[in-house]
Amino acid sequence: LLIQPSFTSLKCFMFLCPKFLHTNSTSHTWPFSAVAELIDNAYDPDVNAKQIWIDKTVINDNICLTFTDNGNGMTSEKLHKMLSFGFSDKVSMNGRVPIGLYGNGFKSGSMRLGKDAIIFTKNGESMSVGLLSQTYLESTKAEHVVVPIVAFNKDHILLDTKASLRAILEHSLFSTEQKLLAELDAIIGKKGTRIIIWNLRRDNNGITEFEFDKDKYDIRIPEDLDETGKKGYKKQERVDQIVPESDYSLRAYCSILYLKPRMQIILRGQKVKTQLVSKSLAYIERDVYRPKFLAKTVRITFGFNCRNKDHYGIMMYHKNRLIKAYERVGCQLKANNMGAGVVGIIECNFLKPTHNKQDFDYTNEYRLTIAALGEKLNDYWNEMKVKKNAECPLNLLVEDIQKQPDQTWVQCDSCLKWRKLPDGIDQLPEKWYCSMNPDPQFRNCLVPEEPEDDDLVHPTYEKTYKKNCPMSTESTILSKKKKLIKNLFLLVFSVADGVS
Amino acid sequence: LLIQPSFTSLKCFMFLCPKFLHTNSTSHTWPFSAVAELIDNAYDPDVNAKQIWIDKTVINDNICLTFTDNGNGMTSEKLHKMLSFGFSDKVSMNGRVPIGLYGNGFKSGSMRLGKDAIIFTKNGESMSVGLLSQTYLESTKAEHVVVPIVAFNKDHILLDTKASLRAILEHSLFSTEQKLLAELDAIIGKKGTRIIIWNLRRDNNGITEFEFDKDKYDIRIPEDLDETGKKGYKKQERVDQIVPESDYSLRAYCSILYLKPRMQIILRGQKVKTQLVSKSLAYIERDVYRPKFLAKTVRITFGFNCRNKDHYGIMMYHKNRLIKAYERVGCQLKANNMGAGVVGIIECNFLKPTHNKQDFDYTNEYRLTIAALGEKLNDYWNEMKVKKNAECPLNLLVEDIQKQPDQTWVQCDSCLKWRKLPDGIDQLPEKWYCSMNPDPQFRNCLVPEEPEDDDLVHPTYEKTYKKNCPMSTESTILSKKKKLIKNLFLLVFSVADGVS
Repeated sequence: LLIQPSFTSLKCFMFLCPKFLHTNSTSHTWPFSAVAELIDNAYDPDVNAKQIWIDKTVINDNICLTFTDNGNGMTSEKLHKMLSFGFSDKVSMNGRVPIGLYGNGFKSGSMRLGKDAIIFTKNGESMSVGLLSQTYLESTKAEHVVVPIVAFNKDHILLDTKASLRAILEHSLFSTEQKLLAELDAIIGKKGTRIIIWNLRRDNNGITEFEFDKDKYDIRIPEDLDETGKKGYKKQERVDQIVPESDYSLRAYCSILYLKPRMQIILRGQKVKTQLVSKSLAYIERDVYRPKFLAKTVRITFGFNCRNKDHYGIMMYHKNRLIKAYERVGCQLKANNMGAGVVGIIECNFLKPTHNKQDFDYTNEYRLTIAALGEKLNDYWNEMKVKKNAECPLNLLVEDIQKQPDQTWVQCDSCLKWRKLPDGIDQLPEKWYCSMNPDPQFRNCLVPEEPEDDDLVHPTYEKTYKKNCPMSTESTILSKKKKLIKNLFLLVFSVADGVS
Repeated sequence: LLIQPSFTSLKCFMFLCPKFLHTNSTSHTWPFSAVAELIDNAYDPDVNAKQIWIDKTVINDNICLTFTDNGNGMTSEKLHKMLSFGFSDKVSMNGRVPIGLYGNGFKSGSMRLGKDAIIFTKNGESMSVGLLSQTYLESTKAEHVVVPIVAFNKDHILLDTKASLRAILEHSLFSTEQKLLAELDAIIGKKGTRIIIWNLRRDNNGITEFEFDKDKYDIRIPEDLDETGKKGYKKQERVDQIVPESDYSLRAYCSILYLKPRMQIILRGQKVKTQLVSKSLAYIERDVYRPKFLAKTVRITFGFNCRNKDHYGIMMYHKNRLIKAYERVGCQLKANNMGAGVVGIIECNFLKPTHNKQDFDYTNEYRLTIAALGEKLNDYWNEMKVKKNAECPLNLLVEDIQKQPDQTWVQCDSCLKWRKLPDGIDQLPEKWYCSMNPDPQFRNCLVPEEPEDDDLVHPTYEKTYKKNCPMSTESTILSKKKKLIKNLFLLVFSVADGVS
C-alpha cells in the first residue's frame, strides 16, 4: 500500500493505537457472531471456498482455534488489506453477492475470540504469512498497529520481508521458518487460507468461553453457573423464549447461517448438515411484501417448523447470511400462544446490517418492515386456523403440525447444488450425489439448479378469512373480544391475588 | 505522532480506508447514542467542562449540529490523537473517573450523525483546527484516512501546517482563514472546544433524522410514518413498554445521562434540568449486592417513580454514565403488572460496556448481575406490598404511589454541587445557588457535598416477608398458586377462543 505523494505533505495520517483492536471487537457480544465473520470471509465470492474446516487444537500448550479453507488464497498485498481497516473490494462474481461490506470482519472477529492471530495463505503462485497480535504489540510497546507480513516466492522469503519474519518467529507460536512452512503445507492443495487464533478469551476463573469437551464434534457456549445451579446459555434478546440450539451450539448455528448454503463447513472433523431453511417447513406459503420505500417486491416464506415447534419467528437474512434468528413479530409478541410454530423467512437486502452483523440499523425502513412482517404472519396464522377449523371444529393445536416438511431437498456433496427429491424418501445416505437423483432431469452435476418460482406479485395462497370477514365487522368483533378477555384477566388476577 | 524507527523497517503499518469511518459508526443504531459520545468527551476529567452548548445552526445552507464546551481544550498533538483511533490516555482526576475508555467516541459519534466534522479547539496557549470529513476523502479519492490539522501560535499559522490549511479551506464550510478564526472566537473564554457536524444523516426522502421544529428547545427523533398513520419512535428493546420520553427527546435523555450530573448541558439555548436520579424516587430503600466474582459490594437503590409510573425498570450506569434505561428484571418481565412503577439504580463499574456504550458485554457476570437485580427487585416489591397490606387490606395499587420524592435535591448553578433541601419546599427559582440554602451547614459553595451513606453491608430495610414465610412453606404456596392461576388462564383462553 503506497502512500499517495500528494498527501504526505499533510503529515496527518490517522493513526491506530493497538488498544483499538480490542475496542473494535467489543460489538460482538455473542461469540458465534465473531466466528461467523471468519466463515463469511471464506464464503465470499473472492475466496469462494468449497470447504472450510473449523478446529480446536493445542500448539505449545496453547489452546487454538483454526479456520482453514480451500478458497483462492491471497497475495501479500491483499493480505495487507485484510489486515488493515475498511478495505473491502469485494464484488459480485458468477451471480454470488458478497456478504462482506465493511472490510472489518477479520479484525473484529479474530480479536474478539483471542488476543492473537496468524494467517497463512497461498494463491497458487505466492505464499504469505501475516501476524495480528495484541500480545506482540503490547510486549514491544508499539504505539501504532503494525502487522508483520512475510512473503514467499516459491520457498524463498522475499528479502524486504526479513524483518517481519524475525518479528513473527519471535512473537508467534512458530519459532522457526520450518514451522511456518509446515502450517502452509497444512493447507491441502495449491490455494487456500489458514487462520490460527490463540490466547482465547477466558473468564475471571481462567475458563475459556467455549466448551470443547461436552461434544467432541461441536464448539459450545457453556451453561452459566450460579448459586442455584446451572442455567442454559441464551442470547440476550430471548426474554421468555425457549432457547434454540443455535444460540449455544456452533454446529446448529452453522446449519442455518446461510439461506442457501454454498460451502461445506466441517466442524471438528464432522460435516455440518446444512439446511435449506425455506424448504424445511410444513404448510409452506409465500407472501409478497411491497415496501413503499423500495421499487421492488420481496418474497416472504411462511411455514410451520416441523423439527421443533418451540422455535418460531422470523429468520432475517441479508445477502444470504443470517442476521436475526427467531425474531417474533405480530401476534407472536402477545402472551397468548398465537402464531406459535410459525417460521417466516425473508432476505432483507434493502436494509443495512450493523457493525456486528447481528442486527439491522434501526431505521424507519426497518421498523416498517417488522410491522409488515407482523401483519403478514398474522394473515398466515389466521388463514391456517380457518382452514383447520373447516376440517375440524377445534382450534389449530401446535401438536397437530405435520412432522415432515412439504418437500425434501438435498445438497450434492460434489457440486454443492441443491436438488428436490420426490415425496416418500425418508432416509438418505451420509453422502449424496446428483448421480443418485431418482429424477433423471437433475441427475447430473452439470445441470443447473431448478429455478426458484419467481412470481413476485401474488401470494401463493388466498386470504379467505379476510374476505369472509369485512374490516368493519372484524374490528367490531375484535374489540368485543378484547373487552371480554380483559375482564376475564382482571377476574383471574383478583382471584390469584386473593390466594396470596 | 512520530513513527517509531524500529518499526519503519517492517513496512507494514495497518492502514485505514476512508470507508472505515462509516463502518465504525454503524454500531450506533440509536442516534442519541452518538450524541452522548460527544457529551462524554466534554464531561471527562481531562476536559472537565462546566458547560456544553448543543445547537442546531445553518452555515452556507447546510444544517449543522454544534457542540461547544468550556473545558480545557487541546494541543494539536492531542487533537491528532482524538482524530486517530484508540488513543485514550484519559485518567482519573480529582476523584472523577473518565467514562471514555476506547478512544473511539468522537469518531464513531460524529461520523454517525453526519458525513463531515470540523473541530476548533484552544487550550489557553495554542489554537488548532482539525477536519474529519468523508466528503473530503471521497472527493480527493484518498486511499487512506488523512486528517488535516492546522495549528496556530497566537494568530499565526505554523508553517508546516499550511498544506492542511489549504485542504480545510477548500473542503470545509469555512473558505477563509478569517472564518476559521471567527469560529475559534465563538468559544467564549480562553479554553474550550467547538465541534461542527454537517451533511447530517437523511432518509431516502431527504428528511433529516432529527426533528428541530416541533420543540425549538429540543432535538427529537420524529414519529414513524406508515400507511396507517403515525407511530411514536421507541428504542428497539421496548417490545411492549410504554415509551419513555428519553427514547425520542434529547432533552429528556440528557437529564438522566449521568448518575451524578457534574456539567450543565445547554440544549438550543435552554439549560437541561438534570435529575439526581437516585434521589428523585419515593419510598427509597437501598439493597446491597455481593457478586461472587467480585471482592466488592455494590449498592442498589430502589424506589417508586413518582414522575411517571409507566416508566420503570433498572437504570444501569457505568462510571456515572447511563448505559441502559428502564431495563425490566424479575417480576417486571411477567405480564401481570407486578413490579410496576419500581425503579432500580445501579452503577456497574465491574461490567464492560460494548462498542456503542448502550449495552454491556453479554458475559456470565452480566447475566448473574441481571438475575440478582431481579431477585432484589422482587424482594423490594414484596416488602412494599406487605407493608401496604398491613395498612389496608387491599393490594398496593400503582395509583397510590406518593407524588413527591422522599427528598428534594438541587444543584447549585455556580459550583454545580448537589444539596439536600428540607421537606416542604415545593417551588424553586429558575437559578439556585448554595447561598440560598436554608441549611446553614451547606450554605457555601466551598463546603463539600454531604457524603453518601457508605454502609455497603446492610440493606436499609428488613425483608420481613421472607421471615414470616419460611422457604418451604413459601414454595408450596407458590406452586399451589401457580397451578390455580394456570387453570384459570386455560379457562380464559378457551372462552376467548370460543368467541372468535
